[in-house]
Amino acid sequence: MLYIIGLGLFDEQDITVRGLKAIQSCDRVYLEAYTSILLVEKEKLEEIYGKPVIVADREMVEQQSDEILREAKTKNVAFLVVGDPYGATTHTDLELRARSEGIPVRAIHNASVMNAVGAVGLQLYNFGQTISMVFFTETWRPDSWYDRIAENSKIGLHTLVLLDIKVKEQSVENMARGRLIYEPPRYMTTMTAIEQLLDVHDLRMRKRDGDVDSDAEDEDQQKHKESTDGGDVVEAYNGDTLAVAVARLGSDSQEIRVGTLKSLRNVDLGKPLHSLVIVGKRLHMLERDIMREYAVDRDEFDLVVSRDYNL
Amino acid sequence: MLYIIGLGLFDEQDITVRGLKAIQSCDRVYLEAYTSILLVEKEKLEEIYGKPVIVADREMVEQQSDEILREAKTKNVAFLVVGDPYGATTHTDLELRARSEGIPVRAIHNASVMNAVGAVGLQLYNFGQTISMVFFTETWRPDSWYDRIAENSKIGLHTLVLLDIKVKEQSVENMARGRLIYEPPRYMTTMTAIEQLLDVHDLRMRKRDGDVDSDAEDEDQQKHKESTDGGDVVEAYNGDTLAVAVARLGSDSQEIRVGTLKSLRNVDLGKPLHSLVIVGKRLHMLERDIMREYAVDRDEFDLVVSRDYNL
Repeated sequence: MLYIIGLGLFDEQDITVRGLKAIQSCDRVYLEAYTSILLVEKEKLEEIYGKPVIVADREMVEQQSDEILREAKTKNVAFLVVGDPYGATTHTDLELRARSEGIPVRAIHNASVMNAVGAVGLQLYNFGQTISMVFFTETWRPDSWYDRIAENSKIGLHTLVLLDIKVKEQSVENMARGRLIYEPPRYMTTMTAIEQLLDVHDLRMRKRDGDVDSDAEDEDQQKHKESTDGGDVVEAYNGDTLAVAVARLGSDSQEIRVGTLKSLRNVDLGKPLHSLVIVGKRLHMLERDIMREYAVDRDEFDLVVSRDYNL
Repeated sequence: MLYIIGLGLFDEQDITVRGLKAIQSCDRVYLEAYTSILLVEKEKLEEIYGKPVIVADREMVEQQSDEILREAKTKNVAFLVVGDPYGATTHTDLELRARSEGIPVRAIHNASVMNAVGAVGLQLYNFGQTISMVFFTETWRPDSWYDRIAENSKIGLHTLVLLDIKVKEQSVENMARGRLIYEPPRYMTTMTAIEQLLDVHDLRMRKRDGDVDSDAEDEDQQKHKESTDGGDVVEAYNGDTLAVAVARLGSDSQEIRVGTLKSLRNVDLGKPLHSLVIVGKRLHMLERDIMREYAVDRDEFDLVVSRDYNL
């Protein structure tokens, strides 16, 4: 039997009783450690489980999946995943392979940021599609998420933005030289995410206007006007759009901050993991009331809500 | 301290270790029992918690919330919720009131159908807004969800449809006579949900065409033609749209069935709880491959996918 077990949001205590029992029946326990991270040491997990935990990075799962599945044919094997088992596509692949080899698969669910984000006071019913944002590099700046946010905001829905983590990444130089030396882990902050959001927004609006040399300040005014006039290219958001920045969701040190993208740009929420929500115009009064509690600047919040939101 | 604790999807084993510890620190434990249900007796919960559980129905929470909050001022009080604490608006209200009275609130997250639905093989990233469907009566047939599904399907996204449960409802007669006699609980099946979906779809299309007397069979053909031609009223779905029917998500008796709405119309998935997903046109190949495993009719599935989906 292959168990795919969600560990929940934060630490060793977020596992379910069902998940814990399943682990205790297992001969081998793998911890997936590349699509997300649990903010706790592996030793802590081993203590609570009473057995060794094998940390499985991307290479290992790709190279040793045959072995994992061979074990699961005759024994109970646990594959632990941060959040819910179906948060990332990777495990779907493992599950499909197991099924095709006739190995029974049992998923044990848990919280993931996709439902826990309700903690910020926004209704889960009012969220559109979720997007992921990766760290930009000099040469790689994927921004197709802009169109996804635009689709959501056009119908007034909120967008959950999941932020990149880089674990066990190699530098280009080390990769070229075949050296298995890894960079320290990096977790995207809401500050970096907002920089990237505003950069891409600027770029899109300049492209739309065929105006790549205009002064940013003047353009800001112009954009604001055009967003209400409509146009071919939809403005997904701008610096005045409300957002929610959240850190360490579900932990005792959880932080929630509400404000415009501009005003959250320099708000440092500290340690990982961070997430961001871009607030849609179909904002409900109850949502507004809770958000207001977390506003970094209540005067600005009230002004923006009364000016830009349908309330 | 007011703990709002998610119990997860199915039974007493789905609580997290963190949630269980919190309950053990509590002087009083309420179980919310009107927005969703756990498929287990309260006695089972009391056994695992080692303390009494007070079942709180809608009346009780509305009438006694003052008392719940008064207790939480000086003691630890647990408010248990099926799924995740933020699945329903009701608890948001309790949380807001607690905060305004200076009572510390701690939410303990868990799985809810909104993330666990990934188990059907569809990517959570490809879901649009979630909708709720209530039981129609002779006189009350709310269908604003049709427009929400249309918004999702216009951009190719999947829609999770949450199905009504009726617990402790009074008949009109008993209510009129002030008799506190309750009807047996009712849980909407995917069959009923599909009937309502197709009824509303027929109604909307007839209204659009100004044609309330046409024969349903002929109209089916006509609709299909029009959906590709476009028009003012968006067709959210039709009988040929793919859907996923799921029952008892997260339990050992979980059932998943895939097919067109027409072909799932008479598929009985047995005991509650049921949910339904309407599949959007932006279907990914990996999603298709997993869905196919659950198809009630693979020939029909292949035909519909190759004809109607962008794959």
